[in-house]
Amino acid sequence: MASNSGRRLNIDNINQHIVSAKYAVRGELAVKSEEYRAALHNGATDLPFKQVISANIGNPQQLDQKPITFFRQVLSILENPTLLEKSDVLVNHLGYKPDVLERAKKLLAAVGSVGAYSASNGAPAIRQSIADFLERRDGFPANQADIYLSAGASSGVNTLLHVICANEKSGILVPIPQYPLYTASLSVLNAACVPYLLDEQKNWGTDLATIKAAHEKAEAEGIDVRAIVIINPGNPTGASLSEEDIRAVIEFAREKRLVILADEVYQTNVFVGEFISFKRMLRQLQREQPGAYDSVELASLHSVSKGMTGECGHRGGYFELVGFDPLVQGRDLQLMVNPPRPGEPSHELYAREYDGIFGGLRERATALHKAFEQMEGVECGAPQGSMYLFPTITLSAKAAEAAAAEGRTPDEFYCMRLLEATGVCVVPGSGFGQKEGTLHFRTTFLAPGTEWVGSIVKFHAEFMEKYR
Amino acid sequence: MASNSGRRLNIDNINQHIVSAKYAVRGELAVKSEEYRAALHNGATDLPFKQVISANIGNPQQLDQKPITFFRQVLSILENPTLLEKSDVLVNHLGYKPDVLERAKKLLAAVGSVGAYSASNGAPAIRQSIADFLERRDGFPANQADIYLSAGASSGVNTLLHVICANEKSGILVPIPQYPLYTASLSVLNAACVPYLLDEQKNWGTDLATIKAAHEKAEAEGIDVRAIVIINPGNPTGASLSEEDIRAVIEFAREKRLVILADEVYQTNVFVGEFISFKRMLRQLQREQPGAYDSVELASLHSVSKGMTGECGHRGGYFELVGFDPLVQGRDLQLMVNPPRPGEPSHELYAREYDGIFGGLRERATALHKAFEQMEGVECGAPQGSMYLFPTITLSAKAAEAAAAEGRTPDEFYCMRLLEATGVCVVPGSGFGQKEGTLHFRTTFLAPGTEWVGSIVKFHAEFMEKYR
Repeated sequence: MASNSGRRLNIDNINQHIVSAKYAVRGELAVKSEEYRAALHNGATDLPFKQVISANIGNPQQLDQKPITFFRQVLSILENPTLLEKSDVLVNHLGYKPDVLERAKKLLAAVGSVGAYSASNGAPAIRQSIADFLERRDGFPANQADIYLSAGASSGVNTLLHVICANEKSGILVPIPQYPLYTASLSVLNAACVPYLLDEQKNWGTDLATIKAAHEKAEAEGIDVRAIVIINPGNPTGASLSEEDIRAVIEFAREKRLVILADEVYQTNVFVGEFISFKRMLRQLQREQPGAYDSVELASLHSVSKGMTGECGHRGGYFELVGFDPLVQGRDLQLMVNPPRPGEPSHELYAREYDGIFGGLRERATALHKAFEQMEGVECGAPQGSMYLFPTITLSAKAAEAAAAEGRTPDEFYCMRLLEATGVCVVPGSGFGQKEGTLHFRTTFLAPGTEWVGSIVKFHAEFMEKYR
Repeated sequence: MASNSGRRLNIDNINQHIVSAKYAVRGELAVKSEEYRAALHNGATDLPFKQVISANIGNPQQLDQKPITFFRQVLSILENPTLLEKSDVLVNHLGYKPDVLERAKKLLAAVGSVGAYSASNGAPAIRQSIADFLERRDGFPANQADIYLSAGASSGVNTLLHVICANEKSGILVPIPQYPLYTASLSVLNAACVPYLLDEQKNWGTDLATIKAAHEKAEAEGIDVRAIVIINPGNPTGASLSEEDIRAVIEFAREKRLVILADEVYQTNVFVGEFISFKRMLRQLQREQPGAYDSVELASLHSVSKGMTGECGHRGGYFELVGFDPLVQGRDLQLMVNPPRPGEPSHELYAREYDGIFGGLRERATALHKAFEQMEGVECGAPQGSMYLFPTITLSAKAAEAAAAEGRTPDEFYCMRLLEATGVCVVPGSGFGQKEGTLHFRTTFLAPGTEWVGSIVKFHAEFMEKYR
């Protein structure tokens, strides 16, 4: 029997699924970078850099991205509706356009107070706005009853995985590399993660043979594979899937009876080609071959944290369910999906801000990519989408030995040295998963300026020299 | 093998822990009341009432409670910080007091953009404000590092239960009646709920002999009882615990090595006596007998949804951990805790609004209680705290038979008839748990006016007559 003197909970007797869940984008490097930031804030002068660059997390507004004016003006009224009693002051003295006031009125009429609880799946009027947006995006109908609001996409993923996974034999196909939300949630749930490698040679596209092999192997091991996760555009890879890849995945999901979890939070961040949603492609296939795809179950996720909106802190997201059993579905954003349109008073400023953010992202991505191309042992596909680059790095055996001596993987070792030398915080590829024998890191291209890119180049040359 | 034609997910093969989790405050009655509301909105004239009263959920701002001006003015600036560039307009034309501007500036300096991700456990400056508030409240120090921000208290409870429960043998003592968040979360987690009855004779206080018996029985059945949940002031009971009860629970938790989960979200809604926090009582015991209580682990939860704030929709909450192992703790609101103080420009209006809400709640509670006292077969203790009354109802055998014929429990049957006849939506006691052989319902006392109370009295008399 345990004695009465000690605490009840210790690291060995609490939920071990929580203990084993890892979240690299908020791990040791992130903690250390915050310590550096605090030290600089408190006047430290003994560090080899003057600022910390958080390239580890896609958090635009922590860096220099300004929020979109229209959104924030509407939100300010939702928080303080009495402002509407002074609409002349808003318009004449504070630069609020009439469509801002109209939108706020409409939303307040629909949701009542933002301080009130709403329906479990979200206020109906907001869900209707999202359905309208999806119809415009895809050219196929969407039903507000199939839309579920969530606190960011993360919470939606968590809900869906909780419903889908019945026990420790339930398996989910997860791309590697992946955003660690998926492996962490599956660990907490004690369900099986069935990894499939993305194809770096195809600019991180999906490779059907690899997916098939992973599925077959898992089923042979007694895993009941129930769903496949696709992150498009990719995180951490920055890839944007081709129509062909999307078709192939839907076809495979139909054949193997897999729910498709399409994480499409970066859908507006596409720099090459156009974004094609899984919903649109599924509806197209259903039109081409009536009846053949009716049993396909698709959940598509989106979030206000991403795209040009970048409102991470507002924790807004939704998922749309397609083809789910109504009994299953029974369990269970407006501004982003409905920005000012041409001709409306706020449109000019909105379009200027939106294009400015989009153009800035593309420029920075290109500059960063160019820098990577010049670095020894670094390979990186051209930026396609999302807000990340995920270069391969090739490190020497000597570097690997030095890493092992510290109990780190070589990519963790590299990222830690990079942080210490430059103040730039990135995430090692091992936090997302990578093919055995390969090393990567993920960096956002959100931070302004080019100085920090230069400091990475300089660090890299020195690191390579030291461990040659 | 399953055929390729059907869907992958059905109600029988998804996570059965999710299917079995019940949430009465958002159950069948709530759904039906929304249908009535929609019908009335669309002009229905065939219903025996003209409005739906949602007394099933503590949602003040859905009813007539106005948000506190100071909070909302500050929030409007946080959403649109460019307003600070026109501070003269805010002050001279929109009635913003200088302390509103100061507070917004201070918060923006501390958190940066509200559109950015913050630290996993919340922005340090907000946690510091909460620590300061706890020191003022309890007269004992509080450390910001022990405070964790959460999306409402519900999300905090969920996190804590996830950490504490290691497997299906882990048990948590839960009061009956309880807010169904606890049983629902434990069901999803597949951990053991160990119910202990509250003592209706003691106005729903805790009875130590009952708790002990429940604990003993569970341990004898092989359950590893790890924590005890206390909801104070009570939900659904509306009780406020005495100092003696709190001391006894802490003593018991110390003896049996139980983590105390103190759900204290209604701490400002105390109408009889004063609120005593578990933290304060624990620190007092530690001072009286140095060393004896050092191993007690306490988590105390609070939320902006409750109290006079009533900002349910803003999803703000925190928990404070006391006495936890640092390794366990390593796993992972400013306005509510820091309102304007006397002498500051916004204080007068704040105090008027706060007192108005508090007084209104007490008045309505008293009126409702008086009505219950006149109703045949209804017994209800005087209102003490929170925003609920939880009367006992005694129904005839004939009513029980009619309920059984519909497949409902007698209290569900009663509440459904009440909704149909009056448009007043309350929650049956079976949704919270109740002693065998007893029946209750929970009603909020948030709805304005007295007409709806009269309609309950009238319905009740007719119901009793019909099933006599």
